[in-house]
Amino acid sequence: MAVQPVLLAGAWRSSDAADTFRAVNPATREPLPDVFPVSAWADLDAALSAASEAYAVMRQLPAEALAAFLEDYAGRIEAHAETLAETAHLETALPVPTRFVGGEIPRTVNQLQQAAAAARDGGWSLPTIDTGSGLRSKLGPLGVVCVLGPNNFPFAYNGIAGGDFASAIAAGNPVIAKAHPSHPKTTQLLAELCLEALKASALPDAAVQLVYHMSNDDGLKLMADPRNAALGYTGSRRAGLALKKACDGHGKLAYLEMSSVNPVVLLPGALAERGEAIVDEFVGSCLLGAGQFCTNPGLVIALNGQDTDSFIQGVVAKFESSPIGTLLNEAGEQTLTRGIQSLQDAGAELLTGGKPGAGTGCSVSNTLMRVDGATFLTNAQHLQAECFGNSSLVVVVDDAAQALAVLNTLEGQLTGSIYSSADGSDDGTYDALEPELRQRVGRLINDKMPTGVAVVAAQNHGGPYPATGHPGFTAVGFPGALRRFAALHCYDNVRPHRLPALLRDDNPTGTMRMIDQVWTADDVAAAATA
Amino acid sequence: MAVQPVLLAGAWRSSDAADTFRAVNPATREPLPDVFPVSAWADLDAALSAASEAYAVMRQLPAEALAAFLEDYAGRIEAHAETLAETAHLETALPVPTRFVGGEIPRTVNQLQQAAAAARDGGWSLPTIDTGSGLRSKLGPLGVVCVLGPNNFPFAYNGIAGGDFASAIAAGNPVIAKAHPSHPKTTQLLAELCLEALKASALPDAAVQLVYHMSNDDGLKLMADPRNAALGYTGSRRAGLALKKACDGHGKLAYLEMSSVNPVVLLPGALAERGEAIVDEFVGSCLLGAGQFCTNPGLVIALNGQDTDSFIQGVVAKFESSPIGTLLNEAGEQTLTRGIQSLQDAGAELLTGGKPGAGTGCSVSNTLMRVDGATFLTNAQHLQAECFGNSSLVVVVDDAAQALAVLNTLEGQLTGSIYSSADGSDDGTYDALEPELRQRVGRLINDKMPTGVAVVAAQNHGGPYPATGHPGFTAVGFPGALRRFAALHCYDNVRPHRLPALLRDDNPTGTMRMIDQVWTADDVAAAATA
Repeated sequence: MAVQPVLLAGAWRSSDAADTFRAVNPATREPLPDVFPVSAWADLDAALSAASEAYAVMRQLPAEALAAFLEDYAGRIEAHAETLAETAHLETALPVPTRFVGGEIPRTVNQLQQAAAAARDGGWSLPTIDTGSGLRSKLGPLGVVCVLGPNNFPFAYNGIAGGDFASAIAAGNPVIAKAHPSHPKTTQLLAELCLEALKASALPDAAVQLVYHMSNDDGLKLMADPRNAALGYTGSRRAGLALKKACDGHGKLAYLEMSSVNPVVLLPGALAERGEAIVDEFVGSCLLGAGQFCTNPGLVIALNGQDTDSFIQGVVAKFESSPIGTLLNEAGEQTLTRGIQSLQDAGAELLTGGKPGAGTGCSVSNTLMRVDGATFLTNAQHLQAECFGNSSLVVVVDDAAQALAVLNTLEGQLTGSIYSSADGSDDGTYDALEPELRQRVGRLINDKMPTGVAVVAAQNHGGPYPATGHPGFTAVGFPGALRRFAALHCYDNVRPHRLPALLRDDNPTGTMRMIDQVWTADDVAAAATA
Repeated sequence: MAVQPVLLAGAWRSSDAADTFRAVNPATREPLPDVFPVSAWADLDAALSAASEAYAVMRQLPAEALAAFLEDYAGRIEAHAETLAETAHLETALPVPTRFVGGEIPRTVNQLQQAAAAARDGGWSLPTIDTGSGLRSKLGPLGVVCVLGPNNFPFAYNGIAGGDFASAIAAGNPVIAKAHPSHPKTTQLLAELCLEALKASALPDAAVQLVYHMSNDDGLKLMADPRNAALGYTGSRRAGLALKKACDGHGKLAYLEMSSVNPVVLLPGALAERGEAIVDEFVGSCLLGAGQFCTNPGLVIALNGQDTDSFIQGVVAKFESSPIGTLLNEAGEQTLTRGIQSLQDAGAELLTGGKPGAGTGCSVSNTLMRVDGATFLTNAQHLQAECFGNSSLVVVVDDAAQALAVLNTLEGQLTGSIYSSADGSDDGTYDALEPELRQRVGRLINDKMPTGVAVVAAQNHGGPYPATGHPGFTAVGFPGALRRFAALHCYDNVRPHRLPALLRDDNPTGTMRMIDQVWTADDVAAAATA
């Protein structure tokens, strides 16, 4: 059977394949028909060289060209939403209408459009002008960016269509995308649309390239290569840390989104006030998409008492009566099963679940575990390990002081939630816990579960290590996400006609710039006169 | 003789010293009287614990408290400028009036004041509000920051008074400062003033602590410690890379300013037009402070021809007739001597210098070397090694294409300059070279030498690896420098009274915030109505 080609330097070429693979339909465990290559180094070497050449052109392009390409590509994805969704459904078992056509694909289109708007506006680059010293600076493009997407979002985080991709391109960088081997066909369809948009654009053909898979060693070699500048990665902690190490050792930037258990603290007043509603919110959040979200609530902290017992009983009942979702692949099924066993080995009590799900698909029954605070504290490292999927652990603590002690053991997280009562009875406890939680999470949430990541400027889909590799940046939300893939470019006494457009005296785009310490959309002359 | 104490947890305590050392007057090679400790781990352990406790208080303080402390401290430095300058002169041989009282001390005071202003304004934290989704975010404090200053700026980059210190404090973080062992007494005097300012402030006593020295192993252990969050470092590449590795491996942020040769490209039209003036500019820049600046022009690229020969002859003559500066210490003298020999071993021709300087002080005669472009290209890695001090290498290239090839071999640099003619005759060559140079430097300069780093918002004292550890940030210039020592803090559906001041609806400080994608100094209600 023919091996699918890779997209290198603007053309679909047969891969220098070290091996091949097929995706598996997780609902049937049957392999899907197409055979995809595991690229050998020659593919990656070719991609790096072509990307470097593309960069030399791309970094000189006006932002309008970048924006127009992203918008055109977004339109093509929108026009092919049904086909894309059906293909992704076969590779992920995620539902076509509710997940893809009605959710993730519009989000992906919107992200590309927001990235285009950010590129066109230019304010993301923080243009800064000091008229007295003759210094002007802005963030500019960085170089070749490798983007490796995760298994759980075949569109919104795809290496060739997701947020990292859109950010890197909008900032003026070429992208070498790696498909997630769980959904190569979906990625191939996206790449075909992307190539059409590239050919219709002012961008060089090699501005976006695609490979499907590579050996771990070649992945590390790719990071370390002088032609690579940065990595955008979403996935497991283990692979992420290996890639980070390869980047760090060679001065490459690594923006990684790795594991998170997203602690949810349920204060007693909130449970007394609206316990049943919180059960519903938690179950909805934890089982959504079979729990396969980076922001899945994997750790609940609640104070010992009747309301907490009722919460747990309510969740157990709903977990047992709720449908069991299909997991993304057999590897995920195995990892989740092992993770649940590992938490039990570390002292957690299985309340429900922990068994193979019914039917032929990849699945694990909806799982809830419980552990007391003292036990958690004796083995906090193991008991906070992420179980990616429809599973959660409730830590029942003796009191607020023990809750604080538990928070103090937590590694960096994407999110942390606190539910508190409306009547103010939880406020003292909130004030005691919030500062410690704040330090450990990127997004601090009140009275809401962590799933659902709005693509807005104030979003932070990021957090302290090891949730990510740098706590200062978000992977979701424009214009901020662009700033990851950028270098600060200062111009000192540079003659006016040689300056980039955003740093010249006139400001026809009305971009916000800091001129002599004042943010303004004015021209330099007008600002200096004012 | 009594060993000087370290500043831990708000008090001068006797050190748990693993060893001791004395600074040496580089003008006489005589040891200075005071004996300082090389801290054992117990000192660092105590500093980390005290800093962690201080952080729990400090991160909750209003920005006004941080600003007031920085301003008070700045005032105390200003009031003691003479004593500080005389002490630093003994430890560095740099001149009291021209370098310290008339230059570096006012700069240091100004930096602290600018950092205070940035903290008070709050705009550095990029407050961002999305009213539709209920998401609000800003940069917030990061945690304990270790600051290690270099030998060449006893004030403006000192771990307890310089730009990294000011940035870390202004962003809300406690600092553990390490003196450079070349100027411990100067650092001690600064710390005494700092402690006075701390005691007079709302900051916890342990917000700033000081040790003088530590073993390399303890330095790496300090970086890796869970209580440490980040490093601010200026110094040699070798030490910087070791510290970076320790930080990277444990998810700590490392902002490092390391080596740079700061290439200066002299285009033919410029040399024809104003060759003698360029000789003067180059000699002044290269010999300033005995060349001991991060932005010293260590590599000149010029096209083969009579004007380039004249430039070289002019520089040789001036190097030979100019006074020989005193170097900072014997280690610097040895490193420079070895570096000059190493460039010759790699193919450079010694035109002048390369010998011990006259007199008793640490010095090397003003040194100029020359190499042709072809030789440079065969051994670019060795020939671009930094020789920190009063030394430079001229690469004479055959043509613009070879100049481009030379630029393409260069590692990341803090700065890069291009001199071009006023009549436009160099413009074509400029356009061919600029994009490659732009990618390799933080600050791109026209018609000016690289020394002299203005402390303004548009400055970039940074650049691609290995000049620094992250190309997106500057170490000099406010408010940008604060953003290094910060984490992105998002608040999702958080009740209004629990939000930090900068994210509430009202905006009494008039800080620029992005509300619903529009930058404004208005309140939220007013902005939403507008």
